Amino acid sequence: MLIRRAHADDAAAIWSIISPTIRAGETYTLDRHMSETDALGYWLASDKETFVAEEDGAILGTYYLRANQAGGGCHVCNAGYMTSAAATGRGVARSMCEHSMEHARSRGYRAMQFNFVVSTNERAVRLWQSLGFEIVGRLPLAFEHPRLGFVDALVMFRPL
Amino acid sequence: MLIRRAHADDAAAIWSIISPTIRAGETYTLDRHMSETDALGYWLASDKETFVAEEDGAILGTYYLRANQAGGGCHVCNAGYMTSAAATGRGVARSMCEHSMEHARSRGYRAMQFNFVVSTNERAVRLWQSLGFEIVGRLPLAFEHPRLGFVDALVMFRPL
Repeated sequence: MLIRRAHADDAAAIWSIISPTIRAGETYTLDRHMSETDALGYWLASDKETFVAEEDGAILGTYYLRANQAGGGCHVCNAGYMTSAAATGRGVARSMCEHSMEHARSRGYRAMQFNFVVSTNERAVRLWQSLGFEIVGRLPLAFEHPRLGFVDALVMFRPL
Repeated sequence: MLIRRAHADDAAAIWSIISPTIRAGETYTLDRHMSETDALGYWLASDKETFVAEEDGAILGTYYLRANQAGGGCHVCNAGYMTSAAATGRGVARSMCEHSMEHARSRGYRAMQFNFVVSTNERAVRLWQSLGFEIVGRLPLAFEHPRLGFVDALVMFRPL
Protein backbone atom coordinates (compact mmCIF):
# COMPACT_ATOMS: atom_id res chain seq x y z
CA MET A 1 0.00 0.00 0.00
CA LEU A 2 1.31 3.39 -1.03
CA ILE A 3 0.32 6.50 0.92
CA ARG A 4 0.87 9.65 -1.10
CA ARG A 5 -0.33 13.24 -1.40
CA ALA A 6 -3.74 13.58 -3.01
CA HIS A 7 -3.89 15.20 -6.46
CA ALA A 8 -6.72 17.10 -8.06
CA ASP A 9 -7.57 14.08 -10.24
CA ASP A 10 -8.12 11.93 -7.13
CA ALA A 11 -11.27 13.91 -6.36
CA ALA A 12 -13.72 11.35 -7.77
CA ALA A 13 -12.06 8.50 -5.87
CA ILE A 14 -11.98 10.56 -2.67
CA TRP A 15 -15.65 11.38 -3.04
CA SER A 16 -16.49 7.69 -3.49
CA ILE A 17 -14.81 7.02 -0.14
CA ILE A 18 -16.03 9.96 1.92
CA SER A 19 -19.60 10.19 0.64
CA PRO A 20 -20.95 7.00 2.30
CA THR A 21 -19.46 8.08 5.64
CA ILE A 22 -20.84 11.60 5.33
CA ARG A 23 -24.28 10.38 4.22
CA ALA A 24 -24.43 7.88 7.11
CA GLY A 25 -23.79 10.73 9.58
CA GLU A 26 -22.68 8.39 12.33
CA THR A 27 -19.05 9.33 12.87
CA TYR A 28 -18.24 12.82 11.54
CA THR A 29 -19.79 16.14 12.52
CA LEU A 30 -20.49 17.07 8.93
CA ASP A 31 -23.85 17.91 7.42
CA ARG A 32 -25.10 14.55 6.10
CA HIS A 33 -26.63 16.27 3.11
CA MET A 34 -23.64 18.38 2.09
CA SER A 35 -22.93 18.55 -1.62
CA GLU A 36 -20.03 16.78 -3.30
CA THR A 37 -18.48 20.19 -4.00
CA ASP A 38 -18.71 21.24 -0.36
CA ALA A 39 -17.44 17.89 0.89
CA LEU A 40 -14.42 17.91 -1.41
CA GLY A 41 -13.85 21.57 -0.55
CA TYR A 42 -13.73 20.58 3.10
CA TRP A 43 -11.55 17.48 2.67
CA LEU A 44 -9.12 19.17 0.28
CA ALA A 45 -9.16 22.63 1.92
CA SER A 46 -6.07 24.78 1.55
CA ASP A 47 -5.36 24.64 5.30
CA LYS A 48 -5.09 20.84 5.10
CA GLU A 49 -2.59 18.40 3.65
CA THR A 50 -4.57 15.55 2.13
CA PHE A 51 -3.27 12.05 1.41
CA VAL A 52 -4.62 8.88 -0.19
CA ALA A 53 -3.80 5.23 0.45
CA GLU A 54 -3.48 3.38 -2.83
CA GLU A 55 -3.07 -0.29 -3.69
CA ASP A 56 -2.86 -1.71 -7.22
CA GLY A 57 -4.12 1.61 -8.55
CA ALA A 58 -7.22 1.62 -6.32
CA ILE A 59 -7.66 4.26 -3.62
CA LEU A 60 -8.62 2.55 -0.36
CA GLY A 61 -8.57 5.45 2.04
CA THR A 62 -7.84 9.12 2.51
CA TYR A 63 -6.81 11.37 5.35
CA TYR A 64 -6.07 15.02 6.03
CA LEU A 65 -3.70 16.70 8.45
CA ARG A 66 -3.86 20.30 9.63
CA ALA A 67 -2.96 22.51 12.56
CA ASN A 68 -5.70 22.12 15.15
CA GLN A 69 -5.40 25.70 16.37
CA ALA A 70 -3.53 28.83 15.37
CA GLY A 71 -1.26 30.99 17.53
CA GLY A 72 -0.13 29.31 20.75
CA GLY A 73 -1.92 26.10 19.78
CA CYS A 74 -0.28 25.58 16.39
CA HIS A 75 2.14 22.87 17.57
CA VAL A 76 -0.80 20.44 17.89
CA CYS A 77 -2.23 18.94 14.72
CA ASN A 78 -5.56 17.36 13.89
CA ALA A 79 -6.34 14.65 11.37
CA GLY A 80 -9.34 12.90 9.88
CA TYR A 81 -9.35 9.48 8.22
CA MET A 82 -11.85 7.64 6.06
CA THR A 83 -11.52 4.17 4.57
CA SER A 84 -13.37 2.60 1.68
CA ALA A 85 -16.16 0.35 2.98
CA ALA A 86 -14.80 -2.40 0.74
CA ALA A 87 -11.37 -2.20 2.41
CA THR A 88 -12.52 -2.28 6.05
CA GLY A 89 -10.50 -4.54 8.31
CA ARG A 90 -7.33 -4.49 6.23
CA GLY A 91 -5.42 -2.03 8.37
CA VAL A 92 -5.86 0.93 6.06
CA ALA A 93 -6.84 3.35 8.84
CA ARG A 94 -3.99 2.12 11.04
CA SER A 95 -1.48 2.59 8.23
CA MET A 96 -2.82 6.06 7.45
CA CYS A 97 -2.67 7.09 11.13
CA GLU A 98 0.92 5.85 11.45
CA HIS A 99 1.78 7.72 8.25
CA SER A 100 0.09 10.88 9.52
CA MET A 101 1.99 10.80 12.81
CA GLU A 102 5.29 10.41 11.00
CA HIS A 103 4.40 13.19 8.58
CA ALA A 104 3.25 15.40 11.46
CA ARG A 105 6.59 14.91 13.24
CA SER A 106 8.40 15.93 10.07
CA ARG A 107 6.30 19.09 10.03
CA GLY A 108 7.35 19.90 13.59
CA TYR A 109 4.07 19.12 15.32
CA ARG A 110 4.47 18.00 18.93
CA ALA A 111 1.09 16.33 19.43
CA MET A 112 -2.02 15.17 17.61
CA GLN A 113 -5.57 15.77 18.80
CA PHE A 114 -8.89 14.29 17.71
CA ASN A 115 -11.53 16.80 18.76
CA PHE A 116 -14.61 14.69 18.32
CA VAL A 117 -14.54 10.89 18.30
CA VAL A 118 -18.12 9.62 18.57
CA SER A 119 -18.14 7.32 21.59
CA THR A 120 -20.23 4.68 19.82
CA ASN A 121 -17.55 4.38 17.12
CA GLU A 122 -15.87 1.78 19.31
CA ARG A 123 -13.74 0.34 16.55
CA ALA A 124 -12.13 3.75 16.01
CA VAL A 125 -11.69 4.41 19.74
CA ARG A 126 -9.90 1.08 20.18
CA LEU A 127 -7.74 1.70 17.11
CA TRP A 128 -6.65 5.14 18.29
CA GLN A 129 -5.94 3.79 21.77
CA SER A 130 -3.80 1.01 20.28
CA LEU A 131 -1.85 3.73 18.48
CA GLY A 132 -1.10 5.58 21.71
CA PHE A 133 -3.98 8.06 21.89
CA GLU A 134 -5.57 8.70 25.25
CA ILE A 135 -9.07 9.87 26.00
CA VAL A 136 -8.46 13.29 27.55
CA GLY A 137 -12.01 14.57 27.43
CA ARG A 138 -15.64 13.46 27.25
CA LEU A 139 -18.32 15.73 25.78
CA PRO A 140 -21.62 14.66 27.28
CA LEU A 141 -24.34 13.92 24.70
CA ALA A 142 -22.54 16.16 22.22
CA PHE A 143 -23.41 14.02 19.19
CA GLU A 144 -26.85 13.22 17.85
CA HIS A 145 -26.47 9.80 16.28
CA PRO A 146 -29.07 9.11 13.57
CA ARG A 147 -30.00 5.73 15.09
CA LEU A 148 -28.88 5.92 18.73
CA GLY A 149 -29.87 9.47 19.64
CA PHE A 150 -27.66 11.69 21.79
CA VAL A 151 -24.35 10.04 22.68
CA ASP A 152 -21.06 11.25 24.13
CA ALA A 153 -18.10 12.32 22.06
CA LEU A 154 -14.48 11.88 23.11
CA VAL A 155 -11.42 14.11 22.83
CA MET A 156 -8.32 12.00 22.15
CA PHE A 157 -4.73 13.19 22.31
CA ARG A 158 -1.24 11.85 21.71
CA PRO A 159 2.17 13.48 22.05
CA LEU A 160 4.34 12.89 18.98
CA MET B 1 -25.27 47.79 30.40
CA LEU B 2 -26.92 46.98 27.11
CA ILE B 3 -25.92 43.86 25.20
CA ARG B 4 -26.92 44.06 21.55
CA ARG B 5 -26.01 42.68 18.14
CA ALA B 6 -22.84 44.16 16.68
CA HIS B 7 -23.20 46.40 13.63
CA ALA B 8 -20.71 47.10 10.87
CA ASP B 9 -19.91 50.50 12.41
CA ASP B 10 -18.86 48.83 15.68
CA ALA B 11 -15.78 47.43 13.94
CA ALA B 12 -13.34 50.06 15.24
CA ALA B 13 -14.59 49.66 18.82
CA ILE B 14 -14.42 45.87 18.53
CA TRP B 15 -10.88 46.05 17.22
CA SER B 16 -9.86 48.28 20.14
CA ILE B 17 -11.10 45.55 22.49
CA ILE B 18 -9.84 42.42 20.76
CA SER B 19 -6.46 43.69 19.55
CA PRO B 20 -4.72 43.85 22.97
CA THR B 21 -5.87 40.30 23.76
CA ILE B 22 -4.78 38.99 20.36
CA ARG B 23 -1.43 40.79 20.52
CA ALA B 24 -0.78 39.46 24.05
CA GLY B 25 -1.33 35.89 22.78
CA GLU B 26 -1.94 34.53 26.27
CA THR B 27 -5.54 33.37 26.11
CA TYR B 28 -6.74 32.79 22.52
CA THR B 29 -5.31 30.45 19.90
CA LEU B 30 -5.10 33.20 17.31
CA ASP B 31 -2.00 34.36 15.49
CA ARG B 32 -0.68 37.21 17.67
CA HIS B 33 0.37 39.11 14.57
CA MET B 34 -2.85 38.78 12.59
CA SER B 35 -4.00 41.88 10.77
CA GLU B 36 -6.94 44.00 11.85
CA THR B 37 -8.81 42.87 8.73
CA ASP B 38 -8.23 39.19 9.49
CA ALA B 39 -9.12 39.61 13.15
CA LEU B 40 -12.37 41.41 12.41
CA GLY B 41 -13.10 38.87 9.68
CA TYR B 42 -12.72 36.14 12.28
CA TRP B 43 -14.70 37.85 15.04
CA LEU B 44 -17.51 38.97 12.72
CA ALA B 45 -17.52 35.89 10.46
CA SER B 46 -20.77 34.96 8.76
CA ASP B 47 -21.05 31.70 10.73
CA LYS B 48 -21.07 33.67 14.00
CA GLU B 49 -23.54 35.94 15.74
CA THR B 50 -21.55 38.78 17.29
CA PHE B 51 -22.69 40.99 20.16
CA VAL B 52 -21.32 44.00 22.01
CA ALA B 53 -21.81 45.15 25.60
CA GLU B 54 -22.37 48.88 25.71
CA GLU B 55 -22.62 51.37 28.56
CA ASP B 56 -23.12 55.13 28.18
CA GLY B 57 -22.26 54.81 24.50
CA ALA B 58 -18.93 53.04 25.17
CA ILE B 59 -18.38 49.43 24.09
CA LEU B 60 -16.93 47.48 27.03
CA GLY B 61 -16.92 43.97 25.62
CA THR B 62 -17.84 41.74 22.72
CA TYR B 63 -18.69 38.11 22.20
CA TYR B 64 -19.58 35.71 19.43
CA LEU B 65 -21.79 32.64 19.35
CA ARG B 66 -21.73 29.89 16.73
CA ALA B 67 -22.43 26.19 16.30
CA ASN B 68 -19.38 24.31 17.54
CA GLN B 69 -19.79 21.51 15.00
CA ALA B 70 -21.97 20.76 12.01
CA GLY B 71 -24.13 17.67 11.42
CA GLY B 72 -24.74 15.59 14.53
CA GLY B 73 -22.87 18.11 16.67
CA CYS B 74 -24.85 21.20 15.72
CA HIS B 75 -26.92 21.29 18.93
CA VAL B 76 -23.81 22.38 20.86
CA CYS B 77 -22.65 25.97 20.52
CA ASN B 78 -19.35 27.68 21.12
CA ALA B 79 -18.69 31.24 22.23
CA GLY B 80 -15.75 33.59 22.70
CA TYR B 81 -15.71 36.68 24.90
CA MET B 82 -13.35 39.64 25.22
CA THR B 83 -13.61 42.58 27.59
CA SER B 84 -12.00 46.00 27.39
CA ALA B 85 -8.93 46.12 29.64
CA ALA B 86 -10.36 49.32 31.13
CA ALA B 87 -13.56 47.52 32.15
CA THR B 88 -11.99 44.46 33.81
CA GLY B 89 -13.59 43.43 37.09
CA ARG B 90 -16.98 45.00 36.42
CA GLY B 91 -18.80 41.82 35.51
CA VAL B 92 -18.83 42.45 31.78
CA ALA B 93 -17.70 38.92 30.86
CA ARG B 94 -20.18 37.39 33.29
CA SER B 95 -23.03 39.46 31.84
CA MET B 96 -22.03 38.55 28.30
CA CYS B 97 -21.83 34.85 29.16
CA GLU B 98 -25.25 34.91 30.79
CA HIS B 99 -26.61 36.73 27.75
CA SER B 100 -25.01 34.23 25.40
CA MET B 101 -26.51 31.26 27.22
CA GLU B 102 -29.96 32.81 27.09
CA HIS B 103 -29.55 33.64 23.42
CA ALA B 104 -28.24 30.15 22.70
CA ARG B 105 -31.29 28.59 24.36
CA SER B 106 -33.52 30.75 22.18
CA ARG B 107 -31.67 29.42 19.16
CA GLY B 108 -32.36 25.85 20.25
CA TYR B 109 -28.85 24.93 21.36
CA ARG B 110 -28.73 22.28 24.08
CA ALA B 111 -25.23 22.88 25.40
CA MET B 112 -22.27 25.24 25.20
CA GLN B 113 -18.66 24.15 24.82
CA PHE B 114 -15.39 26.05 25.21
CA ASN B 115 -12.82 24.13 23.21
CA PHE B 116 -9.67 25.72 24.49
CA VAL B 117 -9.49 27.56 27.82
CA VAL B 118 -5.83 28.17 28.65
CA SER B 119 -5.30 26.65 32.09
CA THR B 120 -3.25 29.60 33.30
CA ASN B 121 -6.20 31.92 32.62
CA GLU B 122 -7.43 31.14 36.11
CA ARG B 123 -9.76 34.09 36.31
CA ALA B 124 -11.65 32.82 33.27
CA VAL B 125 -11.70 29.21 34.50
CA ARG B 126 -13.21 30.32 37.82
CA LEU B 127 -15.73 32.54 36.09
CA TRP B 128 -16.92 29.78 33.76
CA GLN B 129 -17.12 27.35 36.66
CA SER B 130 -19.23 29.83 38.64
CA LEU B 131 -21.56 29.96 35.63
CA GLY B 132 -22.05 26.20 35.61
CA PHE B 133 -19.35 25.06 33.21
CA GLU B 134 -17.43 21.92 34.04
CA ILE B 135 -13.95 20.93 32.98
CA VAL B 136 -14.61 17.89 30.78
CA GLY B 137 -11.18 17.63 29.19
CA ARG B 138 -7.56 18.58 29.65
CA LEU B 139 -5.21 18.96 26.68
CA PRO B 140 -1.69 18.36 27.93
CA LEU B 141 0.74 21.18 27.06
CA ALA B 142 -1.46 22.15 24.14
CA PHE B 143 -0.81 25.88 24.49
CA GLU B 144 2.49 27.68 24.16
CA HIS B 145 2.18 30.67 26.46
CA PRO B 146 4.48 33.54 25.47
CA ARG B 147 5.82 33.91 29.03
CA LEU B 148 5.10 30.57 30.71
CA GLY B 149 5.96 28.11 27.93
CA PHE B 150 3.86 25.02 27.25
CA VAL B 151 0.80 24.81 29.50
CA ASP B 152 -2.38 22.74 29.49
CA ALA B 153 -5.64 23.82 27.93
CA LEU B 154 -9.08 22.88 29.22
CA VAL B 155 -12.28 21.86 27.50
CA MET B 156 -15.29 23.23 29.37
CA PHE B 157 -18.92 22.27 28.83
CA ARG B 158 -22.35 23.20 30.12
CA PRO B 159 -25.79 21.87 29.25
CA LEU B 160 -28.26 24.72 28.57
